[in-house]
Amino acid sequence: MTMREREVIQRLRRIATAPEARGLLDDVALLDGLVITHDSIAEGVHFLPHDPPASVGWKLVAVNLSDLAAKGASPAGALLSLTLSGDGEWENAFLTGVEHACESYGLPLIGGDTIALPSGSRRVLGMTAIGRAGERVPARATGRTGDGLWLVGTLGDSAAGLQILRQDRHATGTLVDVYRRPVPQLGAGQAIAPRAHAMMDVSDGLLLDASRMAEASGCAIQIDLDLLPLSSAFVAERGGGLEARLFAATAGDDYALLFSLPDGFDPATLSLPMGTRMTRIGSLAAGEPAIAASSGGQPVELPENLGFEHSSDEHRGPSAPPVADRP
Amino acid sequence: MTMREREVIQRLRRIATAPEARGLLDDVALLDGLVITHDSIAEGVHFLPHDPPASVGWKLVAVNLSDLAAKGASPAGALLSLTLSGDGEWENAFLTGVEHACESYGLPLIGGDTIALPSGSRRVLGMTAIGRAGERVPARATGRTGDGLWLVGTLGDSAAGLQILRQDRHATGTLVDVYRRPVPQLGAGQAIAPRAHAMMDVSDGLLLDASRMAEASGCAIQIDLDLLPLSSAFVAERGGGLEARLFAATAGDDYALLFSLPDGFDPATLSLPMGTRMTRIGSLAAGEPAIAASSGGQPVELPENLGFEHSSDEHRGPSAPPVADRP
Repeated sequence: MTMREREVIQRLRRIATAPEARGLLDDVALLDGLVITHDSIAEGVHFLPHDPPASVGWKLVAVNLSDLAAKGASPAGALLSLTLSGDGEWENAFLTGVEHACESYGLPLIGGDTIALPSGSRRVLGMTAIGRAGERVPARATGRTGDGLWLVGTLGDSAAGLQILRQDRHATGTLVDVYRRPVPQLGAGQAIAPRAHAMMDVSDGLLLDASRMAEASGCAIQIDLDLLPLSSAFVAERGGGLEARLFAATAGDDYALLFSLPDGFDPATLSLPMGTRMTRIGSLAAGEPAIAASSGGQPVELPENLGFEHSSDEHRGPSAPPVADRP
Repeated sequence: MTMREREVIQRLRRIATAPEARGLLDDVALLDGLVITHDSIAEGVHFLPHDPPASVGWKLVAVNLSDLAAKGASPAGALLSLTLSGDGEWENAFLTGVEHACESYGLPLIGGDTIALPSGSRRVLGMTAIGRAGERVPARATGRTGDGLWLVGTLGDSAAGLQILRQDRHATGTLVDVYRRPVPQLGAGQAIAPRAHAMMDVSDGLLLDASRMAEASGCAIQIDLDLLPLSSAFVAERGGGLEARLFAATAGDDYALLFSLPDGFDPATLSLPMGTRMTRIGSLAAGEPAIAASSGGQPVELPENLGFEHSSDEHRGPSAPPVADRP
């Protein structure tokens, strides 16, 4: 995040003092039992001009649904904010992706707006997704010292898929599929939210998002990198060593759920959807609100970049996170 | 509206079949007692690069609140979708405009997102505004044959202000003020909504918006141009003749409310805010769903352009509607 973005977000937090805003700490607002989120994606920042437009549409929906999943909400409706910039074929395929994702997750499209931009303008596409809250809407700030830190999903798949595509834009395979058609964890979110202390989605990288949870909750977070859940496709591509684990922990674009539960919590007491992978990866502890990582019982020095922070610099270095962020 | 936009909107209507979408005919969705709208504005399309950024922020809020006003809703919260493109001074002033408008109309900022675009990117700014529904949420499609057609507000002021600014960007005065700081008719909307048959805001030009009401309601609409409410500032600038009236009826950017009431309705039975100007301007009648205009008891031929329709052509002719549209 640039200094400028930090300043703007600080200013927005000073403006957004209503309780419904939850301090702008939660990616969502809570109003009359509805959980409301808005995410925009921009060409060249969150997706590439040559990404298949249907996958861009799918991801716009998935990005927003992941925010609802992290609050245990059920999809209730979405408003689409569409810019048209003269390429009808692109736009039709994009809408097909939006439609398929909405159908897949039972998210009715209920409104929005369409504006025409001069041909060739950078595409900026937005969605407001609205969910009905469950019995509890866990916040990012409600982690407690002593909690276990858990994750639903696997890390690094989408980012690994993007790196494959960067070398060969016609590549196919599981990791490319995850990059193009990520799956928001709605069912798991609904099952976990009533029991979780703190909860959020992992969007910008596990280490960065965990540090945000630590800061919001006012406690230290310890993560055992050896416990990070990696898919077999990820391990086949990049291995399971420390370097691969640090990549997975900082890459972002994960659509996973990060949450804290009381120590000793038995995950078998949750009714999770079939096939859900839920893994304990660390703990919340007393201390400075920051994260610490370990591997093989030894502390691991944290990388300078804990994840993907928005930057207005389109060019990124080789170790940079994926173009698409913020599920 | 370009062919392309018509196609896209037709397609969105086929997708958006949930009752909450109201057929995408209403500028708003209605979900669990909340009225929800999203409008985006783009640089070079809805505002000019040299417009004062605080006025752009104010207008983004007012555009959205006008949609709530037309449904009789009370402001409950807004999510701001902000693109940063490297000009901190512009962005700070923009946020000041947003903040002032939110404060003025009791609209709490409760969420949103901020994305950084490469420096110099076209600004696209969006807002989702949420209101609590009153006892009735009138639709655009519920006008009835025999209704009187009414308007709250005056027409053409903002467009006249923009034309003044086009000749002298340092100009000041009432019409420039209206262009820069339009006032959504929230109080009047809340008073009228329980009684109105059809209701919408005038955003793209009276004749165009009335033709949309005619089409949605399935009846003819007759408008007496001599009855159009014009401000004294407008008349001082452009006169009150037929040419000025046609300008006012097609210019758009009006933030007025257009609604139908049973014939013989007495406006004195409404508790309108002090100073509200409410005018009967015509009638709904049996016949083809189209509009007809008259002046001095004689039919007036309708201009080719009934109002402002989105176009991806940045350059507009001298008779073109204002840059800023869709309140």
